Amino acid sequence: MRMYDIIEKKRDNQALTKEEIQFFIQGYTNGEIPDYQVSALLMAIYFQDMNDQERAELTQAMVESGDQIDLSAIDGIKVDKHSTGGVGDTTTLILAPLVASVGVPVAKMSGRGLGHTGGTIDKLESVPGFHVEISNDEFIELVNKNKVAVVGQSGNLTPADKKIYGLRDVTATVNSIPLIASSIMSKKIASGADAIVLDVKTGAGAFMKDLDDAKELATAMVTIGNKVGRNTMAVISDMSQPLGNAIGNALEVKEAIETLQGNGPEDLTELCLTLGSQMVVLAKQAATIKEARAKLEENLHNGKALQQFKIFLNSQGGDASVVDQPESLPQATYQIELPAKSSGKVAEIIADDIGTAAMMLGAGRATKDAVIDLAVGIVLHKKIGDEVKEGESLLTIHTNSEDVDEVKDKLYRSISISAGEIEAPTLIHGMVTE
Amino acid sequence: MRMYDIIEKKRDNQALTKEEIQFFIQGYTNGEIPDYQVSALLMAIYFQDMNDQERAELTQAMVESGDQIDLSAIDGIKVDKHSTGGVGDTTTLILAPLVASVGVPVAKMSGRGLGHTGGTIDKLESVPGFHVEISNDEFIELVNKNKVAVVGQSGNLTPADKKIYGLRDVTATVNSIPLIASSIMSKKIASGADAIVLDVKTGAGAFMKDLDDAKELATAMVTIGNKVGRNTMAVISDMSQPLGNAIGNALEVKEAIETLQGNGPEDLTELCLTLGSQMVVLAKQAATIKEARAKLEENLHNGKALQQFKIFLNSQGGDASVVDQPESLPQATYQIELPAKSSGKVAEIIADDIGTAAMMLGAGRATKDAVIDLAVGIVLHKKIGDEVKEGESLLTIHTNSEDVDEVKDKLYRSISISAGEIEAPTLIHGMVTE
Repeated sequence: MRMYDIIEKKRDNQALTKEEIQFFIQGYTNGEIPDYQVSALLMAIYFQDMNDQERAELTQAMVESGDQIDLSAIDGIKVDKHSTGGVGDTTTLILAPLVASVGVPVAKMSGRGLGHTGGTIDKLESVPGFHVEISNDEFIELVNKNKVAVVGQSGNLTPADKKIYGLRDVTATVNSIPLIASSIMSKKIASGADAIVLDVKTGAGAFMKDLDDAKELATAMVTIGNKVGRNTMAVISDMSQPLGNAIGNALEVKEAIETLQGNGPEDLTELCLTLGSQMVVLAKQAATIKEARAKLEENLHNGKALQQFKIFLNSQGGDASVVDQPESLPQATYQIELPAKSSGKVAEIIADDIGTAAMMLGAGRATKDAVIDLAVGIVLHKKIGDEVKEGESLLTIHTNSEDVDEVKDKLYRSISISAGEIEAPTLIHGMVTE
Repeated sequence: MRMYDIIEKKRDNQALTKEEIQFFIQGYTNGEIPDYQVSALLMAIYFQDMNDQERAELTQAMVESGDQIDLSAIDGIKVDKHSTGGVGDTTTLILAPLVASVGVPVAKMSGRGLGHTGGTIDKLESVPGFHVEISNDEFIELVNKNKVAVVGQSGNLTPADKKIYGLRDVTATVNSIPLIASSIMSKKIASGADAIVLDVKTGAGAFMKDLDDAKELATAMVTIGNKVGRNTMAVISDMSQPLGNAIGNALEVKEAIETLQGNGPEDLTELCLTLGSQMVVLAKQAATIKEARAKLEENLHNGKALQQFKIFLNSQGGDASVVDQPESLPQATYQIELPAKSSGKVAEIIADDIGTAAMMLGAGRATKDAVIDLAVGIVLHKKIGDEVKEGESLLTIHTNSEDVDEVKDKLYRSISISAGEIEAPTLIHGMVTE
């Protein structure tokens, strides 16, 4: 078999066989196939696409390129959730204890990563003492005991995906549905979940700005998941504005606590209930979505979800008293309001720009080695469709530096107020099941 | 400027600017841009094509990537001829002295190369004493004095093209009109010709099997040439069967001599007159094609073309007596006939396979260091449309090894005889001018 023939075949719009895809992935992973042949193939895939079978084979070959996490020692059906990324997305912090509280085992492997704020682990580290440096055995034991644990990513998961992603990033081949879908799904599958709920974001703050593109990506990932034997479904949710109100690490933990108390922002709560119901059904802890949702709502209001969060924090060294005294979370020195310059209805809150503003405050990492300020961030007081009066605060900037003129400018430019009638955007744009 | 943006722009079907094309070519030539980005761009060009302006800019940038030959010290308009390659193509050996004999300066830079037979230089070296190791000054002096000289390729011509060609060859991006056209034209232009006549072959033995593809390539090259200020035209000629009768180095020299005496094969003579007339007009040695052709025909029959060939051979150390005694050219030990197995008309002579058979005899190089046997080859006695009787010789195998069973098998498989009516193929399929 020759890589040349594989490139030519895809260039000529023929489907690649399982053996050809494995040859390419194995050869590239072990360095036998050079970057320049792979980038030519990736560009050919960009133009010619891959069919469902090829996408599944590609995903499976990337899964098999490295370690695969074995979660079989955990009782029950392990359901993982993946979000395609947005601004102020606190759902993981809420969903993990929430679905665990109704009996779904949550074995979460998470990273730190780059972005507007830190990753799930960074956020959780706002809780004094909390740590994710636990052994694999401890991790499995904790999930079996408490139904929920979080561990830092370890092992050599999907090295083929890492190499291919690095190459796509410099050859203008990132934006390809089969390549995006196989990249995301290979990581999820290698992480050992039995079932997967995908939260595919759409709108100005999402990777997929357009609803049709989001639906296409969701369908691609659901098809791959089911083809490789993992029960998979997707929710398509709105990211035209930030989700919830808080953007920042400790600020999002506080918001998660409020949500687990039943007092969270409406959109964040609704999305958590939507995603959570799907997870509960996939884990066979409820027969219908309606039943699952009722269980989750109940636990948000009877304190069980919050109690589960405390157990979880405590079991990994965290000071669970923050749940009752959120003021003991890291706090920024200054709280600076952003008064509205006119009256009307909030027409636009550009999620990407709000995220960038949070990053300018120090909430996120631009490079791997950057240090995150866990205390800083932004809390929105108004969302799209809300009425606002001139001088009323649109949001609070939590900062450790008094000089925030640049951040303020950025924020003013990203929020527009209109005299006309503005509707709040639809939160759930659709669902994709097999 | 970033290579990433250039790849993305072409991927999205936007035209690249002159500056972007120069950035890419210069950066790749000097090693600043890696192979993997260039191969992604080449695949994007494969799918999105380039417009006429981009093709001309690409060609010019490749010309400027290395040395350019300065022929300005040669009097008159220097016209070069380029063939896209076929089997048994002896035209250069004939055209050089033929057009020189009517006053067109021929400053030919040639190579050895890989193929079914050697290159023009290998063929000429069949003449005892002939050599191309002459200095640049001698070369120019010879052309000014005798109107014709051949020199081996030297200098660092179009290094960008060499690098890109090497990459295309391993990434399935050879077969792209803008890339083929700019590659050929950059080499011709860097070689210093004022005007260029292209012989674009079509048919089973050509790179462009299909007439429409050949026309597209011819048009692309003619447009590039004229856009960069070189008067360029193309003839589209047949390569469904070998051109002329001889395939082999000394055998082609002998055929060239016969043609220069006015006794050459009909197709070879006709193509030389067609290409030659165009060259003479481009060099302004005749006002019309008709006038040019009359001059060339006259010199084929009055001995002037042959005399010019003798002068040419002699001036570069060759023993010009071979022209009158072609039996002193290298001769193979054995002449083996290939008798027809049935009677009828010759329906097919697969040019590629005849070429491969010549190569199996030792007439060509498969690798750079292979040694050529100048004496061996094949001489056809029948061409498509000719009548043949069972047992009559189809061709003579000139070989230095008696064991040619494998070659015979190959030849029998590449020639078919039919009982039906068969027409000789059209030789000239069209012309492309500005």
